[in-house]
This record gives sequence, structure tokens and C-alpha cells, in this order.
Amino acid sequence: MFRSNIHTIGVMTSGGDSPGMNPGIRAVVRAGLANGLRVIGIEDGYEGLLNARFKELGARDVGGILQRGGTFLRTARSMEFKTPEGQRKAIRNLNNAGIDALVILGGDGSLTGGMALAAQGVPVVGIPASIDNDIFGTDMCIGVDTALNTIVDAINKLRDTASSHNRAFLVETMGRHCGYLAVQAGIITGAEMVVVPEFETPFEEVATAVDEAYKRGKLHCIIVVAEGAKLNATELAQKLEEMKLGFDTRVTVLGHVQRGGKPTAFDRFLATRFGVKAVEFLLSGQTGVMTGLDGREIVPVPLSQVVSRPRTLSEEYMKMARMLAR
Amino acid sequence: MFRSNIHTIGVMTSGGDSPGMNPGIRAVVRAGLANGLRVIGIEDGYEGLLNARFKELGARDVGGILQRGGTFLRTARSMEFKTPEGQRKAIRNLNNAGIDALVILGGDGSLTGGMALAAQGVPVVGIPASIDNDIFGTDMCIGVDTALNTIVDAINKLRDTASSHNRAFLVETMGRHCGYLAVQAGIITGAEMVVVPEFETPFEEVATAVDEAYKRGKLHCIIVVAEGAKLNATELAQKLEEMKLGFDTRVTVLGHVQRGGKPTAFDRFLATRFGVKAVEFLLSGQTGVMTGLDGREIVPVPLSQVVSRPRTLSEEYMKMARMLAR
Amino acid sequence: MFRSNIHTIGVMTSGGDSPGMNPGIRAVVRAGLANGLRVIGIEDGYEGLLNARFKELGARDVGGILQRGGTFLRTARSMEFKTPEGQRKAIRNLNNAGIDALVILGGDGSLTGGMALAAQGVPVVGIPASIDNDIFGTDMCIGVDTALNTIVDAINKLRDTASSHNRAFLVETMGRHCGYLAVQAGIITGAEMVVVPEFETPFEEVATAVDEAYKRGKLHCIIVVAEGAKLNATELAQKLEEMKLGFDTRVTVLGHVQRGGKPTAFDRFLATRFGVKAVEFLLSGQTGVMTGLDGREIVPVPLSQVVSRPRTLSEEYMKMARMLAR
Amino acid sequence: MFRSNIHTIGVMTSGGDSPGMNPGIRAVVRAGLANGLRVIGIEDGYEGLLNARFKELGARDVGGILQRGGTFLRTARSMEFKTPEGQRKAIRNLNNAGIDALVILGGDGSLTGGMALAAQGVPVVGIPASIDNDIFGTDMCIGVDTALNTIVDAINKLRDTASSHNRAFLVETMGRHCGYLAVQAGIITGAEMVVVPEFETPFEEVATAVDEAYKRGKLHCIIVVAEGAKLNATELAQKLEEMKLGFDTRVTVLGHVQRGGKPTAFDRFLATRFGVKAVEFLLSGQTGVMTGLDGREIVPVPLSQVVSRPRTLSEEYMKMARMLAR
Repeated sequence: MFRSNIHTIGVMTSGGDSPGMNPGIRAVVRAGLANGLRVIGIEDGYEGLLNARFKELGARDVGGILQRGGTFLRTARSMEFKTPEGQRKAIRNLNNAGIDALVILGGDGSLTGGMALAAQGVPVVGIPASIDNDIFGTDMCIGVDTALNTIVDAINKLRDTASSHNRAFLVETMGRHCGYLAVQAGIITGAEMVVVPEFETPFEEVATAVDEAYKRGKLHCIIVVAEGAKLNATELAQKLEEMKLGFDTRVTVLGHVQRGGKPTAFDRFLATRFGVKAVEFLLSGQTGVMTGLDGREIVPVPLSQVVSRPRTLSEEYMKMARMLAR
Repeated sequence: MFRSNIHTIGVMTSGGDSPGMNPGIRAVVRAGLANGLRVIGIEDGYEGLLNARFKELGARDVGGILQRGGTFLRTARSMEFKTPEGQRKAIRNLNNAGIDALVILGGDGSLTGGMALAAQGVPVVGIPASIDNDIFGTDMCIGVDTALNTIVDAINKLRDTASSHNRAFLVETMGRHCGYLAVQAGIITGAEMVVVPEFETPFEEVATAVDEAYKRGKLHCIIVVAEGAKLNATELAQKLEEMKLGFDTRVTVLGHVQRGGKPTAFDRFLATRFGVKAVEFLLSGQTGVMTGLDGREIVPVPLSQVVSRPRTLSEEYMKMARMLAR
Repeated sequence: MFRSNIHTIGVMTSGGDSPGMNPGIRAVVRAGLANGLRVIGIEDGYEGLLNARFKELGARDVGGILQRGGTFLRTARSMEFKTPEGQRKAIRNLNNAGIDALVILGGDGSLTGGMALAAQGVPVVGIPASIDNDIFGTDMCIGVDTALNTIVDAINKLRDTASSHNRAFLVETMGRHCGYLAVQAGIITGAEMVVVPEFETPFEEVATAVDEAYKRGKLHCIIVVAEGAKLNATELAQKLEEMKLGFDTRVTVLGHVQRGGKPTAFDRFLATRFGVKAVEFLLSGQTGVMTGLDGREIVPVPLSQVVSRPRTLSEEYMKMARMLAR
Repeated sequence: MFRSNIHTIGVMTSGGDSPGMNPGIRAVVRAGLANGLRVIGIEDGYEGLLNARFKELGARDVGGILQRGGTFLRTARSMEFKTPEGQRKAIRNLNNAGIDALVILGGDGSLTGGMALAAQGVPVVGIPASIDNDIFGTDMCIGVDTALNTIVDAINKLRDTASSHNRAFLVETMGRHCGYLAVQAGIITGAEMVVVPEFETPFEEVATAVDEAYKRGKLHCIIVVAEGAKLNATELAQKLEEMKLGFDTRVTVLGHVQRGGKPTAFDRFLATRFGVKAVEFLLSGQTGVMTGLDGREIVPVPLSQVVSRPRTLSEEYMKMARMLAR
């Protein structure tokens, strides 16, 4: 083992929050303690790193957080950290506090920051946390499963009212660049159509789907539209309404509720595994990497790969959504 | 007893749907059958009444609907029914089908329709169903409790992410003329401020609430805004954002999810009591009335009162919201 | 007003916990502060009172507890407090800490304790909290609505598996002396039969209900049995199984999950109203009373009445359960 | 392609039900239809197969079942099918109905039945459905994720009341031979100890865990015990109670609620993928296999392997549970 260098680790959350960050932090803390390390929580992400908002975390400090959404270390965006001066200040703060290594939970931007620190010699392991599931190198990010269950729950509710009124609902999910949530939600709620940023969907195709659902005698019609899709949900609704296809049309933007909520069993477990592995990676000298879910295994993925490659959306699942929506 | 005239009753849902309508229909059907009546379901509200979309309902037909949101008889709005010709057609359809009396679940507009039929001799009992709780003559309408729990659940989720980011959230609830949902939600989620149609709230008051929450060290700030409030949620957010009060500001419009969902225990029970009483009222010759919750009791309230008087919002609860939000 | 005597109030929870106690405590604290009082939390119920486990509560101390089940002040049973010596010690502790009056949230036993203190001159207001709804003088106790929703949710789950297997399920709910939860749950889940402590149910009646459900072609059969019913759920199941009525028979004892969970909207609001009123009662010199929900109003009910009279179960609801279960 | 032989497929559920079976059936039906096949639903598992309870399923017949727990085709156990005569009868029924191939959703016993049919020439694909996750050849079975979330939810509720009373709770989960649910639940709820059938746990170890939790000042203590563990939950509780370790001890047997409930997002998606692949396997001539989740992929696993090999429990996760429970 190669642990001699590392006695104290810092843990922080950065970027948009996602449910499961708390269980992730808990796992880092308890696995750290079990390995004889001190663990320091860094509050407010990179902003807190620049302002040395550090507090030591014991086993009790992370009791009772397993079931809480969000992140009790909070998170923030920092412009200053993107500058070389900011990064030098961050490293000095780490040194002053005796923090030998860093575990960072967050999305693409947060991991890019981690890579910058790693490039300057700080042992860093990233943990992918993003409800959009838009990070290269891992099958799943922390928070996706919870967000998906929240979306499914909302669509169930919309379906109740849609069926009572013969309505078509356009449901906007999160996903600025990535249609993962939208496609999955479409498949598992039996939506009539899914519109995502990655694939072009002509308006006519959407109109046809609505038209056919009506003719087939369906009492409702659900179209899931990712936030970043070219066809915007509100515009889509207007155009559909003008076509008078039989259904009244309504739009629901699910918004920030998708970020909250108690983490599901899946997210708690994934976050826990990531947290434990992150400590293992650091102690075995693997740095500049992210914990990635690769099938059954958690593997180290170089941060340089993570931040430079786009995650692609499975066309198979798009086809599956269409096939099952009859 | 005065039941000789009534052998067959019709039951319908009209206007906006609300969770609990299904248990209400079930109670009407089973209480009707228990009293030796035939029960006919009328689909699609007044539109279905005008088009004789009738189907007889047996005990089994309403099995398994207790836990379903919306209304399996569906609902629709009808312009034609508002005309004298429409109403005559409706009455003829009822006569043709041998329907002696009518139970109508719905909101203000639906009950106004019921009053018109009652005035023309049709025995009618209305059941108040509206998530807004905007109907005079009853402490609670069917659907309010479920909608409130949905709102509470959503605000809990928003609070998770708000706390993680130091954010103020403006949450728009339903309630075009009535702030009931907003005030109740405000009190029971500990919102910092509530804005409703019934009372004027100067913008400065909202800004002060946000400002003070920030200064007191709160990690988040929740403002609940009823749909029909003069200060619109989106505009409010813009103005608050410009004031740079410390919190980032976000808006979430909860929208139609508030109408859906499995009815809660409270709504199931209220709807069941209303349904049973509606049949009792019809059989004892009480017609042109609505089942109203008056404290512990279900009482008959003349439809003429119901539709002519506005429901007022308790100022006591507005004060309570303010007092507890510290 | 008569507030001059009271500057500091204590608040405690006692007996079995129930969801909604936390919102109740919060309301007492914030209403107390709003009225210029100091508020002291007493931990671990009467045991904590005897051991002076006191801590002052500020507005922030009750932030974030609205949505937590149980009671953050904890609760315990104390034998010592039932003795005159115990009560004298309790009163001395209150005096030493400068606590002028007491708000006690709990069930029958806890309120009996409160009455003893009141009889010895301590201004006391009780708040009824008990998931069983077994307290005289209030339409509803804190916790009942949440427990009922938990039961409904569990029965929904059991129904899924019961329908898949053609099974009869005997579901034991809490309620040692009181069948309230069982009857309500029976009505709103459409159970085939309800068995409670207050009314004798011959075994034959249960067997007939199961038999008829099977013959009518129902895919499942749910019997709700209150914990304290003469016919015990497990014995009932055995006897039914021996009769080979067509359904396989299973028993589920819901147990302590009924006590937990986030308080529902209803329980939060009821607890909040009770808490605010309890402070009002104390400040207006009304003592030795319990806050009781009487229709729409919260009224003071003498503790002497509360603890000496049994709450009765509505026969009307028993009949309603039977009528609707066809 | 090799599809010429197969024009009509049967789909059935067998053994214990698990949430997600309905989405699985839906996927088989819609994927079948999309591939030009007729699909016949077989009711009541092997018993229905022996009694030719067949009904053709169209796209609309599986609308609205995505969110329902259990299986709308029902399930049953059949002794007769285990005999050679029974199996011959089953095959004759399939031939009479023109069913060319079979998709069977179920657990170990059901898949053994499927293997018997495959051995006699019936093209069969199995889909693993079992909340216990006790089937060899797949990372996950349908229903496990939903059951786990139900358990987590129940333990959250128990924790509320446990913390309020300083109690230790022994929670019995399903799992007669397999501790998967117990270990996972233990890790993700932060239980103090997990007891499973696969590993011996001396009583002293449990007692020590409880003792230490009390000494460390924890307000509650959760021990998750799998149904099939040598140390029975009720006995364990008694022995712990006798040791007077500080906590009161309570037992909760979660029971059949673990089988019910709306399938989670994960289970819906897994079931959907399995269903689509099952049809693909049949059409490409792969028979006598089960759809197995192998990392990211769905692969065909010979039924002969599935039913002859035991699934082992990861020791790594047992260690993880211990490490994190401090």
C-alpha cells in the first residue's frame, strides 16, 4: 500500500446538487475513518475551498443524513476558482489545513475543476453526481434514479388528470444537453413520444403521434420533452393546439423538484459504493480519476477522459420508446 | 320516507377533476345499490349528459377505483349545456333513460348547472369537488387534502435543493380566485411568505421577508404564491433577483400535478361520506342541495346559496402563517 | 389579559410518539416567542422532567422539524412520576428552572399526569397526540391522519399481492382499546370486514364475508383487525384457513411503522393549530385543559373530563363499512 | 432470422409475485406485436396452463398496467404440473391453442418448470422475477429494487419512533435462503447490524453492536434480519431484552407489503428490457434460456445453469455494512 502520504482527506460537493450526495459524503467520511484518516468537510463547493470553509467530520456528523436530499455541505458556483490565481489560493488553503487529498462530488464542471487541481499535484478523486446522467465514463451518476422516480411519479399524477379530460400533456424534464431522463421516463411511463436534444424530431412526427393516439381511442397522450430539445415544450403545445387534433393540450415544466427528494435505494447504494471506492483509490495512489460504474464494477476513469468526451444517448432506447408506445 | 319516486339515479363528474372523485362515485353507487336503486354513470360531464353517454354501474364496476386519481367517468366542459335548449335536451335524455335523480360531483360551475336542472324539476344533489377549496357552504371540498399533500411534498423537494444552494424559491400553487391552498401550504411547510388573491401584499413586504430570512442565516427561503395573486410569481422573482438580496431566486410552477395522485385517506373518507349522504338526501326528498361539511356533520346546503356566495379566506390563518415563519 | 404570571413555558412530549408532535412543538415555540415568552424544551417526557433535562428553544431550534416524524424532544414512560414524591420533584424542578407553565403533548396517560400537576397549581395545557384517536374531547388527535395514510398505503401494497394470488389478508392495525384506525382504514380501502374491540363480531360473520367475497368473484379479500379486538388476527387466520373458503389466508401485523413517517398536511396543520391555541389558552388563564378539535373550532376541554370519559366508536361508520364492502 | 416457426407466443407469471411483472408482460406483448406475433396471456401460472386459461392480449390490454404492482395475469402454485402427466397436458394445451413459444416470468421454481417444458421441445425464455434476488445468472431480478425501496421506507418510519423512544428495532425482511435484501437494506439505511442466512452471526456479535450503539450515544439501533437467518428476529429480541443493554427492544416483521407497490423506475425499465429481449431471443432461436442482466447487457443464460447453481451473497457488501455502521 501507498497510503503513507495521505493522512487527511477533504470532501466537497460542487455544481448542481443531486439526491444521493449526502450518502456519498457519509461513505467517504466513514470509509476514511475506518482507514484511519481524518476527514474534513469543505462547505459551498469551490467557493468554500477558496474561503477555507473547512470543518472536521466525525462518524456522528454524518449520522441521519442518508435519507436527506441535497447536500449538507452545500454547493456553489465559483468564477474565481476558474482562474490560475483562484486555483493557487485553493491549493494553499488545502496545504494550510493539512488536507492531503480531495474527493469531489459533482458534474462535468466540478470534475474539470478537480482535474485542474490534480494537474497541479493534488491527489483528487471525482464522484459523478448529476441528475442528467450526462457524464462520460460511468453508466450511472448519483441522483439519476431518484430524479427518474420523481418524474415517473409526476407523470402518473398528470396521467390521472389527462385521462379525466382527454388531454395531451407535454412534460418538460431536466436535461439541457442530454435526453437520458426524457427517454427513460418515456419508456417507463409509456409516453406516446419523446423529444431530446441528441436526435432531431420533426414536428410532424410529434403531431402524428398525438393524432394516432387520439384515433386509437387513448384517453390521454403524454409527450416527454427534454429541456434542451430543439422543439421547446411550450412552442410544441401551441402548434399542436392549433392543429386541433382532438386532445386539449397542456404543458407542465417539472423544474427543480427533480433535484430534490430522499435518495432512492439505488442512489444510496451507488453513492455509498462510489464513496468507499473513492477512498480506496486515493489510498492506493490512484488519482486524477473518477469513480465510474462499469457494469457491475466501480472502476477508475481518468478525469481527462471524463471531461473531454461527450456521453452519447443510446439509439436503442429511443427505438424501444417508440416500439412500446403503441 | 319519500323514496317512492326515485328508482334510478345518475351520477356524473363535471368541471376540473380532483382526486377523490372516484371514491365519491363508488360511494354513490354502493349506497344506491344498498338502498335498492339502479345507478347510471354519466360519462364526460354535461357533454355526456347531452349525448346520453350512460352506462349502468354495478358494485363490481366501482371495485378498485378507490385508489385512483381523477375520475373514471371523465369530465368535460360544455357550452351547449349553458343554453336553455341544452338543458331541455339534458332533461329529455334523463327521462328517456329513466333516470329519476342526479348526483353531480364538481366545482362552482358544475353546481350552477345542477341548480339549473333542479329549478326545472330534476332532483339534484351536488357534491363539492375542487382542489382550490373555493366553494361556499362546506369546510372542505374533495381533493383539497390530496392537493395539499402533493404541494407539501414538492416544497420539501425544493427545500432540499434550495438549502444546498442558498436559494429563494417562488412556488406557484393553483388557486385562481382562492388562496386556500397557498396559505395552508405556507403554514405547514414553514414558508417565509404567502401571497394570495384575497389580500393585497405590497412587494416591499415580500422583499423584506426575503431580506430578513437571509440575514437570520436561513439557508433557503420559500414564498408560496397562489396562481391568481396580483403579484405574479415570475415577475416577483425578477424583481427580487434585481434587488440582490443574497439568495439566488428561482420559480417553480407546480401546475397540473396538483390535480392528480391517489386520493389521501382524508379525501377518500370525505368523498365516501358525501356520496352516502347524497343518496340519503335524494331518498329523503332533499333536493337542490349540496352536501356540505359543517364541522363534524354533513349537512344539506341549498345550491342557490352555494353558487351565489363567495367563500372567504380566514385572516386568522394568514396571521398564523406570518407568526410562525420566523 | 392575564399573562403577567407567565413568562416562561415548558413544552414536552410524553407516552407513545405520534407523527405531528414535531410541528406541534414548533408551533408552541414560535407562538410562545411571538408572545414574548421564553420557551424551554423538556426532553424524554416525565422522566426528563424528573431529571431536569431542560434546554431553551429558540426559533431556529425548531427549524426543519416540520417534516420529521417522531419527536425531537423524545418521550419516555416514568413510573416515578406517578408517585406523589415524583410529582413534587417535578414541580420543584419546574420552579428551579423558572418554568411558569407547561404544554404537554401526549395520550391519555400523559394528560392524566398533566392533570395531576394542574391540581397542584401548575398551569398546564394538554395537546392530544395519539395515533389511535382514543382520547375523549377532540374529534382528532395528532398523528391519526398520518397513521391512516400509512395503513392505506400498506393495504394497497397487500392488495397487489393478494389479487395476484387470490388471497385473503388479515391486517392488524394499532388500537388496543379503540377501533378507530381499523374502521376508517376498512372504509377507505374497501375492506371486506372490520373487527374492532368496541363491538362483538362473531367468527361466523367474518367467515361469511370471506365466503361471499370469494363467491362474488373477488380476487382478494381484506379483513382489518384492530390490535385489541377479541378475535385475534392470527387465530382468525388459522380458523379461516381450516374452513377452506377458497382464498389462501395470510396475516400481516403492521406494527410500529404506523407510528412513523413524515406528518401529513392534515397532521401538520392540526398540530400547528393546537400548538398556537395552547399558548393562547395559557396566556388567557385557561389551565387544566386540553386543546380539543370540536368541528371547526379548537376549544378548551377540562382535563378532568378528558381522562375520565371513554371515547366511543361511531356505529354509523361501522355500518358504512359494511354497506360499502359489497 | 429464424422466426418462421414462431407465430404465437404465450406469456405467463408464476410463483411468488413481484412488482415489475406487469411492465414485463407489457413489454413482451408490445414487442411481440411489433414483430408481427400474436400474444396469448396465460392466467394463474402453471395452473392456468393446465386449465387452458388463455386470452389473447392486444396493445390496449396492457395499457395502464405499467404502474400496477403484482401481476394482472395472476399467479399460482401447481403440484400437478410437477408430474410428467401434468407437463404433457400443458404441452397439449399449448398445441391446441396454437401457442408456439412461451415467456415465463418467475423465480427459481417457475424457471425449473420452464426448463422441463424446454426439454420437451417447447421454445421457452424465462425472465427472472423475485424480490429476494436469489436467482443465479442475473445481477438483478425484477422486483428487488421496489422491495428495497419499500423496506427503506419502512425502516425510515421505524427510525422516527425508535429515536423518540431510545429503542432497538429488529426488522425482519423477506429472504428465506438469501440475505440480499437484508444486506442492501442494512447498508443503505445505516443499520447497526445485518443478520443473513448465508453467514453465521454469533449472538454475541449482535449484542456487542447494540451495546456499542448505546454507549456511543445513538438514539436508536436498527438490526436487519433476513427471514431465513438462523438467529430468528423474535428470539433475538427476547435475548437482547434480557441483557438490558439500554435500549428497549421491538420487532417488526415487514411481511407481504414487501411484495406490493408500484414498480420503481428501475424495475419498470429492467422488466421492459427483459421483456423485449425475451421476444428477441425467441425469434432468433435462443430457447431454454433466461434473460440475465450481466453488467450493462441482457444476455441469454441457459436455464440448466440458472436452476442448478446457487446465487452467492457478496462478502464485500457484508463488510461494507459493518464498516459504515459506526
